[in-house]
Amino acid sequence: MKKIKKAIISVSDKKNLKFLLKILSKHKIEILSSGGTFKEIKKLGFKCLEISKFTGSKEILDGRIKTLHPKIHSGILSIRNKKSHKNDLKKNNYEEIDLVIVNFYPFENILKSTNNHKKIIENIDVGGPTMVRAAAKNYNDVAVVTNYNQYKELSNELNLNKGCTTLDFRKKMSVAAFTETAYYDAIISNYFNSQSKVLFPKKKIFYGNLIENLRYGENPHQNAAVYSINKKLNLNQLHGKKLSYNNYNDIFSALLISKSLPKNTGTVILKHSNPCGVSINKNNFKSYKLALACDPISAFGGIISCNYKINKKLAIELKKIFFEVIICKSINNDALKLLKIKKNLRIIDASKFSNNNLQSISSLSNNILVQSLDDFSFSKSNFKVVSKKKPNLETFKNLIFAFNVCRFVKSNAIVISNNDSTIGIGSGQPSRLDSCEIAINKMKKFHKEKLDDKIIAASDAFFPFVDGVEKLVQSGVSAIIQPYGSIRDKEIINFANRTNTILVFSKTRHFRH
Amino acid sequence: MKKIKKAIISVSDKKNLKFLLKILSKHKIEILSSGGTFKEIKKLGFKCLEISKFTGSKEILDGRIKTLHPKIHSGILSIRNKKSHKNDLKKNNYEEIDLVIVNFYPFENILKSTNNHKKIIENIDVGGPTMVRAAAKNYNDVAVVTNYNQYKELSNELNLNKGCTTLDFRKKMSVAAFTETAYYDAIISNYFNSQSKVLFPKKKIFYGNLIENLRYGENPHQNAAVYSINKKLNLNQLHGKKLSYNNYNDIFSALLISKSLPKNTGTVILKHSNPCGVSINKNNFKSYKLALACDPISAFGGIISCNYKINKKLAIELKKIFFEVIICKSINNDALKLLKIKKNLRIIDASKFSNNNLQSISSLSNNILVQSLDDFSFSKSNFKVVSKKKPNLETFKNLIFAFNVCRFVKSNAIVISNNDSTIGIGSGQPSRLDSCEIAINKMKKFHKEKLDDKIIAASDAFFPFVDGVEKLVQSGVSAIIQPYGSIRDKEIINFANRTNTILVFSKTRHFRH
Repeated sequence: MKKIKKAIISVSDKKNLKFLLKILSKHKIEILSSGGTFKEIKKLGFKCLEISKFTGSKEILDGRIKTLHPKIHSGILSIRNKKSHKNDLKKNNYEEIDLVIVNFYPFENILKSTNNHKKIIENIDVGGPTMVRAAAKNYNDVAVVTNYNQYKELSNELNLNKGCTTLDFRKKMSVAAFTETAYYDAIISNYFNSQSKVLFPKKKIFYGNLIENLRYGENPHQNAAVYSINKKLNLNQLHGKKLSYNNYNDIFSALLISKSLPKNTGTVILKHSNPCGVSINKNNFKSYKLALACDPISAFGGIISCNYKINKKLAIELKKIFFEVIICKSINNDALKLLKIKKNLRIIDASKFSNNNLQSISSLSNNILVQSLDDFSFSKSNFKVVSKKKPNLETFKNLIFAFNVCRFVKSNAIVISNNDSTIGIGSGQPSRLDSCEIAINKMKKFHKEKLDDKIIAASDAFFPFVDGVEKLVQSGVSAIIQPYGSIRDKEIINFANRTNTILVFSKTRHFRH
Repeated sequence: MKKIKKAIISVSDKKNLKFLLKILSKHKIEILSSGGTFKEIKKLGFKCLEISKFTGSKEILDGRIKTLHPKIHSGILSIRNKKSHKNDLKKNNYEEIDLVIVNFYPFENILKSTNNHKKIIENIDVGGPTMVRAAAKNYNDVAVVTNYNQYKELSNELNLNKGCTTLDFRKKMSVAAFTETAYYDAIISNYFNSQSKVLFPKKKIFYGNLIENLRYGENPHQNAAVYSINKKLNLNQLHGKKLSYNNYNDIFSALLISKSLPKNTGTVILKHSNPCGVSINKNNFKSYKLALACDPISAFGGIISCNYKINKKLAIELKKIFFEVIICKSINNDALKLLKIKKNLRIIDASKFSNNNLQSISSLSNNILVQSLDDFSFSKSNFKVVSKKKPNLETFKNLIFAFNVCRFVKSNAIVISNNDSTIGIGSGQPSRLDSCEIAINKMKKFHKEKLDDKIIAASDAFFPFVDGVEKLVQSGVSAIIQPYGSIRDKEIINFANRTNTILVFSKTRHFRH
């Protein structure tokens, strides 16, 4: 138990300050402050001693030097039950400071509001983090508050303990304080590194804001949480139970695919973070029906992402299938009402969702792999027709559609497509031939009706042998798109020419694991 | 260009200090210091002014208060070309400090050497980070050095510019400095959070040390790097080209599996981060042959992880197959010599590799999913025999082996096994039935010889319908292990009983995406 006699307050964000001052005043706690905080305290009618009067050192350098003074830091850092420390204070006429209430210059917010480097730099707080770190280090004797959300807790603590704080409370506040300083410098470090175009510094700091604790992870015996580098995810949940870890995982994957499709046309159905049906069509209803037709059995219990507005007609269809999550770019009231009847369905409006950080991280225990996202848009110059037979514009478009879907399918990936809709997806196989077979089997299973002759296929990496290409062509595929690079490329081109198949090579490979 | 006249030095790690002092002396730079650094400088025979003499404030609180003084921080933080700042310094008899050379109390190392919380806390540096952050903020005028590895660079800079530093240099040092303070507080924050058993704090900081920049990421158009929370990975590469992103990804997955197998017995073959052959056998040679036999075609170009020592006999066999990476727990000289002939092979001794951080992170752009690892060891109490027919000890062991492999296969996962060796793996399918079919087809393709009647199968999650179980049993599977939880569990138990199949339910599910 430590009695609080003297507090120092320096808050850039003055929210709830009056509430705070009332608590401190109630418990007869003396207040030290300076600058804007000092003025505000006086304005609110509370007693307060200016720091420069306390230290005897004037505030200089436009406020850059206010609290960096031994009288302040001895007051914070002295170990109370140590005689020599007590003597040191006495000799120097220093006094104990028992409570530090500081929030920092708003570096993170300034980044969002300006590109002015000088202004950004001026918002790097030096004095604030120093007091907070000193207090957090000395939590055995000193309490530290770094966020206005903690004032209520401070109030409860002081009321409960007659103006004292418990060690538990001080330790908890100290943990939060070091998290705050680490977070603050992580953002500064990332800003400076990105300014200097350093992608992979010697030490890299990743940071996230807790969005929510999840009931569990991929499986019930794993605990989990979702974080964001932003304060919120910008996923507007309109209906349904809390999202699970696997929901989030699928949603992030689905939105990446949806974003890569032309606006207001694309439907993506996903299961176990693998697409099992993708289609683009200006007629949204058709787009959905075609995506579902790719593999209606796998779609069961999956998630669906529409990069368009859902209307009532579509909602009636969606209602027939068990999806765990429907993601949309807004939804009609009628449609929403209809779908809300389903208790186990989650509906997410992702209109405001966006990605601005262009790296992905994957870590297993101690080790972290960081890479830039594979999210560039394809242009024609990425591709080269290598067969004698040339694709017309429509076929070329369909090939690029299939190749784009392919990059989001777990490797080895084969996508068979017809009319801008997948009709067979082979995923996650160690052998490319197996992925071909799976894709072909899916096509045969769910597309027994006569397909037109525009069946085309895409592969995420080159075919090491001609066998996979052979299988596809035998199954009715008339055009294939694939990265180049195999020592058997020539053999494959020859095969294409012999069978009058269109063959397009891509400059880029698209593994995804 | 800024002339360096006065430097402050406070280094916990005194490596290369003499080299540094020689540079500073050569360029006639005055030195301020205190405590242990001051003593060492004097001992080395260089001139140095003690900080307490410079500030006129005695060092107090056992050294907790040395540099937290307005004279020090005004000297660092003043904007040189601002008149009011110049006047502020003059009025107070303060002087400019142009170079800050600081490394921090060794918090990270102390964590490794002691559990004494008090000692750990005492190693939280307050003064050092404050000077470094002040100098880094004011990089327009001040240079900051935070690591003895930078002395050489400082020396070059001063020599090249006749005792001055360029803005480029100062900015670069500033970026490194903020990375250093962020890293320092990230470790403190993580230590405090783990002390308080907070798994998911409101703000979470992840940090890593750059192990190496990679040529590219999953694909050549993606840039990438590998980091570790430790200073090194403890993977000893004995032979071969640099590891690629996909190599690392596979290696981390493979080692997770190898670790889960009984010591000195397990072989894992992996392709596209999915196992395509796993076996345990006290006879290592057999263990390898059986793992390979599961799918010898997919193994081509994969990686293999042996949790035992590789001898010459095995090396002769390994040499016949094209693997990208061989991981071992040490290797005989003869065997190594033999395998080194292969230019495209990488050989890794992972004897010293270990994982102590028990969370996994997966991020796509802004969003980060964090969860505890799915790595607990199975015990019998995790399982319940629900069929009339009971497994004998051997079958039970084989079932647990298959179920354990299953948790590392991408969902939906089906593993068919015989005699502690996988003989058919179905992975990465949106439908469980499809995974069954893939596993069965693999078994039929590569195991045409008569297998004994101990063919068993494992599923990573429950069967939603009886159809998958039916298929497996029809293909010769005599025992099945799977999590419980389907509304059709009873139907499946009845089916098992009708067909005299052993059925074991697991309490835990093991999705992996």
